[in-house]
Amino acid sequence: MAQPRRIVVIGGVAAGPKAASRARRVDPLAEITLIERDPVLSYAGCGLPYYVSGVVSERDDLMATPIGVLRDPAYFEKAKDIRVLPETEAVAIDRARRMVRVRSRQTGEERAIPYDKLILATGASAVVPPIPGIDLPNVLPMKRVEDADLLKTLLASEACQDVAIVGAGLIGLEMAEALHSCGRGVTLIERLPQILPFLDADMALLLHNYVVQQGVRVMTGAAVEAIEADASGRAARVVTDQGTVEAGAVIVGIGFRPNTSLAREAGLILGPQGGILVNQYMQTSDPDVYAAGDCTEKACVVRGTTCLLPLGSTANKEGRVAGTNAAGGHARFPGVVGTGAVKVFGWNVARTGLTEADSRRLGVKPACAIIAGPDRAHYYPEAKTIIVKLIADSVGRKLLGAQILGPGDAVKRIDVAATALTAGMGIDDIACLDLAYAPPYAPAMDPLITAADALRNALDGLVSYVFAAELEAMRQSGDGPFILDVRTPAEYQAGHIPGATLIPLGALRGRLREVPRDRPVVALCKTSLRAYEAARILSARGDSNISVLAGGMAAWPYDTEAG
Amino acid sequence: MAQPRRIVVIGGVAAGPKAASRARRVDPLAEITLIERDPVLSYAGCGLPYYVSGVVSERDDLMATPIGVLRDPAYFEKAKDIRVLPETEAVAIDRARRMVRVRSRQTGEERAIPYDKLILATGASAVVPPIPGIDLPNVLPMKRVEDADLLKTLLASEACQDVAIVGAGLIGLEMAEALHSCGRGVTLIERLPQILPFLDADMALLLHNYVVQQGVRVMTGAAVEAIEADASGRAARVVTDQGTVEAGAVIVGIGFRPNTSLAREAGLILGPQGGILVNQYMQTSDPDVYAAGDCTEKACVVRGTTCLLPLGSTANKEGRVAGTNAAGGHARFPGVVGTGAVKVFGWNVARTGLTEADSRRLGVKPACAIIAGPDRAHYYPEAKTIIVKLIADSVGRKLLGAQILGPGDAVKRIDVAATALTAGMGIDDIACLDLAYAPPYAPAMDPLITAADALRNALDGLVSYVFAAELEAMRQSGDGPFILDVRTPAEYQAGHIPGATLIPLGALRGRLREVPRDRPVVALCKTSLRAYEAARILSARGDSNISVLAGGMAAWPYDTEAG
Repeated sequence: MAQPRRIVVIGGVAAGPKAASRARRVDPLAEITLIERDPVLSYAGCGLPYYVSGVVSERDDLMATPIGVLRDPAYFEKAKDIRVLPETEAVAIDRARRMVRVRSRQTGEERAIPYDKLILATGASAVVPPIPGIDLPNVLPMKRVEDADLLKTLLASEACQDVAIVGAGLIGLEMAEALHSCGRGVTLIERLPQILPFLDADMALLLHNYVVQQGVRVMTGAAVEAIEADASGRAARVVTDQGTVEAGAVIVGIGFRPNTSLAREAGLILGPQGGILVNQYMQTSDPDVYAAGDCTEKACVVRGTTCLLPLGSTANKEGRVAGTNAAGGHARFPGVVGTGAVKVFGWNVARTGLTEADSRRLGVKPACAIIAGPDRAHYYPEAKTIIVKLIADSVGRKLLGAQILGPGDAVKRIDVAATALTAGMGIDDIACLDLAYAPPYAPAMDPLITAADALRNALDGLVSYVFAAELEAMRQSGDGPFILDVRTPAEYQAGHIPGATLIPLGALRGRLREVPRDRPVVALCKTSLRAYEAARILSARGDSNISVLAGGMAAWPYDTEAG
Repeated sequence: MAQPRRIVVIGGVAAGPKAASRARRVDPLAEITLIERDPVLSYAGCGLPYYVSGVVSERDDLMATPIGVLRDPAYFEKAKDIRVLPETEAVAIDRARRMVRVRSRQTGEERAIPYDKLILATGASAVVPPIPGIDLPNVLPMKRVEDADLLKTLLASEACQDVAIVGAGLIGLEMAEALHSCGRGVTLIERLPQILPFLDADMALLLHNYVVQQGVRVMTGAAVEAIEADASGRAARVVTDQGTVEAGAVIVGIGFRPNTSLAREAGLILGPQGGILVNQYMQTSDPDVYAAGDCTEKACVVRGTTCLLPLGSTANKEGRVAGTNAAGGHARFPGVVGTGAVKVFGWNVARTGLTEADSRRLGVKPACAIIAGPDRAHYYPEAKTIIVKLIADSVGRKLLGAQILGPGDAVKRIDVAATALTAGMGIDDIACLDLAYAPPYAPAMDPLITAADALRNALDGLVSYVFAAELEAMRQSGDGPFILDVRTPAEYQAGHIPGATLIPLGALRGRLREVPRDRPVVALCKTSLRAYEAARILSARGDSNISVLAGGMAAWPYDTEAG
């Protein structure tokens, strides 16, 4: 090629720099230009809560490479031979003439930059709900480094002892922890009936209880009606349909919307979720225009539809593919399975694939298991509990999704489940996985494998599970089963389901006649192990309506009583 | 069935109790008998090093269920309705009459126990090498709780200030840490040229250096000639072909051999590795006899052959399958991929699949990549380095194996690799995996994905790697390449490869004429990132023989000099 290939990348946060760097690798001779609205390139947006809390002390750390080199325009120029135009806005794309019109945000000057291949990495913006008071000066999203800077300034003032967070998703929860650790009173306000909607309601309720225990106030099913200002014109309270919350600052984290105006005005096709539609090569409806990162819709491999999933991990993979193909190489990105993780105080929370609720909505009949178990050999001192929920197709036994939370190592098992989902594995395959075993890392039977076995047992008719929400609904309806608690007296006294009858497992054979045969019986223990033995003993005398509380008391999120 | 099914299980450690419990679940009416030589059932052999070091303080913890119930015979009887015969030895199997002859180890009394289905879970024994002095009273394996008890007694004596460990495999390394943490001088003596032979030599050398840094003396390629006693008749020194090691106790951990005499004498077929041969249903050559756990050979899914892999995790899975099928159910165990993990001081070490050396032996031409990277977002305070080696089939690009080590979370990534191996994924699939991302858990580009990308780049001709051992061999031969270190002066001064030339990446373009064009050039930095940029800059001026040191200084295990 006589002329070097001209590649223009719009967007300098995650997918853009990755695409530009990758294009350079694939085509050493290309002319590569990176356009970014802000002065800062390639910052780690996911690190903002840790910067606010002080866990990350240096602002520059969010913008450095792992070896501590600041990712400023000079770095890209010198190390990568990529021309960077910071503080420059792309205002229009002329696809017929293959030109991007840009405007300097400092001088207002406009000019046209020609391209052979264009890569859109315009990212996403925080959704701003149309609430009265939303534009008060101390009401802010948490998306850019400047948002974190502003919040840190607000926190330095006396007036900001309490913070309200609208939205109890990933960022809401991370910010709740960050602000609580700064000694602030935190109220999480969520419109939906549960926090963290990437979990099923039962798992979310366990997390909800834990967050409340940490000292955060949580309101669910609460609609924000207005944010009201004090005399100084600054937000001072959030009015909801469940009451008013005092707040010296309000963080709004209710989601992100892909930045697509540039693409839309250029006539590129958008997808059903509102993101730029791309194929597996990250190509838009114009073969010379690629898109990557938070501005695109992602193919969801499990769902068979597209979804929005604004994550730095996916943005980097997509950027690599867009950069490769724009530079004349060949790469594809098959899509995501929907994996996410969040640290919330001392708990690790992670999920992948479909939730149980997702599965039902998609018309798949799910089978579920919930188990509780130690993340390491139970005798290893650092062993901590995790609660695992697996969801499988009840007919084909294929894994559909997994959710894990608790103080133990949840993320490791979710990564395995995500890999299994990608490969289309069934629960019988998962139960046989050769996962690494040594006491500091896992018990001999990894909780993921135990969960797969529990699910197999249920599908094979060897055990019948009742889930906490089902049992609670039966209890509330007044038509509850006989609840047989087979733990020790000490465990029972520390906290049990109101109305449960204590018969320790060791005593059960001798006290069988205390268990009625004309009512459904739900056996429970701390996890499920002893309850299963109890169910077996009852079945052996011919009882038929025996079930086991899935996950035991470890996964019971409703009221208990002591004594 | 008029008569209940009689299931007899021989062996009460891991696979046996699991098989018995599972048979009970599948057939509530079966008569199940569990035979065990020792008084103790179901102990956690893998926990012994942690019991010796005191990390696990209570001996009973090794024998309890996760909820603290001791797994004694009464527990099995009462909770599971399984008859246990402790301190009972199975001496012969009469397959024609379906009888097991057993002998009480207390009374010597013999009797015959009939079975319909028999499950062999006879385990493995520590290999005892034919060395003079091997039977001295303070020379011991580390297999049973009694071994740990004896060692703890020895350690309590003044005479035992130094311990020699013969064999630097999993148990040798775990015991080295345990004994070092007890304040003892430890010498590891390994016959092979490297420690931990489940790793490739290059990765093992990194671990070797680290273990030496911790204060353990390590001898490799050292043959033990004798263990010599002092006047009291107790071992006092180990004589090797590399010199004599003083020791108040000697631990011999050179491997395990399946316990197969019972099976062999009963005419059951053994496999090429010396274990009991089983099919996917864990059935031996006699359809009424199953076998599970360390006594069997396992199908290795990657290798396509059988192997021995004595691990509690596999034993439990096999026990479940044997128990299911013996009780009339239907289950299969497809085999293992060869996953292992070990904590060695502050490092996590794990592997799965084939090593590079394995691949060559099997006639597969492997392609490898080694990278170093942080296990979490680099700005997250707990981020620690891991070194990842991936091995793939250079033609089909399928993953063959992975090895990871370092202070960071290695095991999580190995579990993903093991799952990917099981599914037959290629490195292009792995590079696109939707792994969980949040700063406390992973960087946006997980090191496993970075390693897969590095390997793809090598296979796609975008980078040429030289591995540490290759570079060292070239240096030793006196015909070394020009070694271009592109780190900062401070990094260089802290330690560099002797003879390497420092030109920091930022200065390279201006100092190009210092890099010769008539010699091969190897560029290196801390990990590989900057070295890759350097290689690109040199390639751009037309140089052709440029390569990058795989894994950079982070994975360089040979001499360095400071200043």
